[in-house]
Parts: sequence; structure tokens; C-alpha cells
Amino acid sequence: MRDIYHDELDDIGKTLVTMARLVGIAMERATNALLDGDLAGAESVISSDPAVDALREETERRCFEMIARQQPVATDLRVLITSLHMVQDLERMGDLALHIAKVARLRYPELAVPADIRDVISQMGEVAQSLVSKVGDVIDGRDIELAAAIEAEDDSMDALHRKLFTLLLSPNWSHGTEAAIDMTLLGRYYERYADHAVAVARRIVFIVTGVRPEPAPASLDIA
Amino acid sequence: MRDIYHDELDDIGKTLVTMARLVGIAMERATNALLDGDLAGAESVISSDPAVDALREETERRCFEMIARQQPVATDLRVLITSLHMVQDLERMGDLALHIAKVARLRYPELAVPADIRDVISQMGEVAQSLVSKVGDVIDGRDIELAAAIEAEDDSMDALHRKLFTLLLSPNWSHGTEAAIDMTLLGRYYERYADHAVAVARRIVFIVTGVRPEPAPASLDIA
Repeated sequence: MRDIYHDELDDIGKTLVTMARLVGIAMERATNALLDGDLAGAESVISSDPAVDALREETERRCFEMIARQQPVATDLRVLITSLHMVQDLERMGDLALHIAKVARLRYPELAVPADIRDVISQMGEVAQSLVSKVGDVIDGRDIELAAAIEAEDDSMDALHRKLFTLLLSPNWSHGTEAAIDMTLLGRYYERYADHAVAVARRIVFIVTGVRPEPAPASLDIA
Repeated sequence: MRDIYHDELDDIGKTLVTMARLVGIAMERATNALLDGDLAGAESVISSDPAVDALREETERRCFEMIARQQPVATDLRVLITSLHMVQDLERMGDLALHIAKVARLRYPELAVPADIRDVISQMGEVAQSLVSKVGDVIDGRDIELAAAIEAEDDSMDALHRKLFTLLLSPNWSHGTEAAIDMTLLGRYYERYADHAVAVARRIVFIVTGVRPEPAPASLDIA
């Protein structure tokens, strides 16, 4: 019985890694769709999101059933409870990629991102990609040093977010209110995606060390 | 032993109600601080937030320990697992009130909200207040009819959010990019606060009926 139980626990871990991979693909496609005005790419992100939601729901159900049937304690219980939290973070990351894809779709056939903002958004997309790829590895390997690297990379996202606001508030901003609103929301979607990546990393640290994670990182106080 | 156990379960429910009350006070004060340019009010929201975070952490610890020690099944386990999720939603509602207070503080001694936007923000604040007050009652009484009323009220928040964007995008917008950014972020903070209120209500429905909640409501697709 214990073997089936541990196989199932491993399998939940694998599902989390799969979710990280899926929300990573979603983010990559969403950023590309946004920067290239690629409607088909945006639609593919939008139509793929329910698969992530379904994995969240299935994993919640499995965690609940394992707790009820196996009555785990100590580390095993911590893994299951923490997995319940991680699937929420990962699902939310998928939602944020979806929001970005919807901005691309809404502005199509125009490009949502003005040419002089393209660089900073592209860099935010790259940091998001790098973060989610590390998140998959942290979950897979319970690598707490890599978890620390995720915290550092979140600082780069914050710096890019500040840079974005500097561009929006420059006297040279010539793209009007609608584009300013779009850029404000996009900035927030990328930043929150990074925050949830950090939250997942902190939860893995909790599983490994037993040190309860701090609250998810605060948003930037731009406004 | 079972009596102490059920007392403790009740006590966790009371803590959730307390958290709803605290994040309701925070939202009321944050909205007032924002509309009146009240620095002291904004500071009081900011300095009160760690108390909500501490309740979240304490409740997580208690839920974990109860699951480990008492090995509950069926409804009791569902209550504990769901409480773990609800404290996250409630803490996040506190964070969103905090963000609103920070906008008030950042723009002080100016008013962050232009006169012609004041009405819609004030109404968003009122809906937020009404929502969180219902959330406290729903948790306290496990009242699933009231939970349905929360869903309906979230629709009012979405309508106000749309109205805000209409004002921002009107050709008469004369307040510049900085105010447009502030209003965009404020709109999102109120909307997300309402979304988390709905999420809590759905979790209570899950406890009562066993019907697993849908994902939290999607954000408005404005951008």
C-alpha cells in the first residue's frame, strides 16, 4: 500500500511540473502573439487555458482524497497541503498569460505594444519564461538554491516594471490613454506572473526546510 | 477530545470572520483615504495589514496541525482544506486594500482621483464594502443563498469597472497619463477584491453542498 501511495505522491509532483510547463508555453506564446500581432497564437493560448484549470481541479481532488484515505503526517502532509496551494498559483499564472493573449487579440490587427515599449515588454516576457522554467526545475528537483535564484530574478522583473512606468510617464509619451492603459495592465500581468512563480518557489523551500514561506512578494508601489 | 476538536474547528471559522471584518475595515478606510486625501487614514491601513497576514499564518498552522493530529475525513476535512484556501483569499483582499491606501499616500497632498471619476470609484468602494460584509455573514452562517447574492454583486463591480474604462477612454479625458495609470490600477484592485470575495463565497458553497467551486471569476476583458 505504501508504495502505491508514494507513487501517487510522485505523480502529483509530476502534474505540478506539467502545469509549470503548460503555463510556460502559454506565456511564451502570449508574449509572441502580443509582440507580433499574431492572432492565431493568441487564440491558441486562450483555448489552451481550460486544460490547466482541469489539472488544477484534478490535482486538488487527488490531494484531498489522499489526505482523507491515507491520513499522512509530517512531510507527506506538508507536500500535499503545499501542492494544493501550488496548483492555485500555477493556475493563476495561466490566467495571467491568458490576459496577455487577450490584449493581443483585442488590438489585432494593430500591434498592442508601441514600438518604443517593445523592448521592455519583450524583456519582461523573457524574464517570465526564465522564471517559469526554473519553477518547473525547482518543483522537480526540490532545489532550494534554484529557488533563491527565482527570488533574484523577480527583482529583475520589478526593475523592468519600473522602467515601463518611466516610459509611460515620460513627457514624450505620444500613444494616448488607451495604449497607456494597455501597458499598465500588461505590466501588472507580467509582474503578478513573476510573483506567483516566487510563491511556488517559496512553497518548495517550505517542503524541504519546514520554514513557512513569507507572504508572496508585494507588488511594486508605482501607484 | 472530540469536543475540543469541534471547538477548535469553530474557532477557525471565527478567525475567518474576523479576517473578513478586518479586510472590510481596511477597504473602507482605504477608499475614504483615497477620496478625501486622508494621509493618516492611508497610513492606518498600511500599518494594519501585518495583523491580517499574521492571522493567515496562524490559521494555516492550526489547520495543518488539526489535519495532522485529528486526521479528519469528509466534511471536517473539507472545512479545514477550504479554510486554508479562504485565508489566502482574505489575505489577498487585505493586500488590495493596502495597494489602494498606497495610491492615496503616493499622491498626497493631492487627491489621486480626479473629480469626474470620484463617483465611480466611490461606488466601487461601496460595492466592495457590501461584498465583504456579506462574505463575513456567509462564512459565519454558511448561508448559500447569500453566497449567490455575492455573485450578483460582483456583476455590479464589473459594470462599474467598465464604466471607469469608458470615462478613461473618453475624448474628454484631460487628466493625463499618470492619472490614467492610477485609475487603471485602482480599477483592477477593486475588481480583484470583488473576485476574491466571490471565491470565498464559492468555497463556502463547496463546504455546504460538496459541489467543487468553479475557478474564481475571470477578470474583465477590457484590455
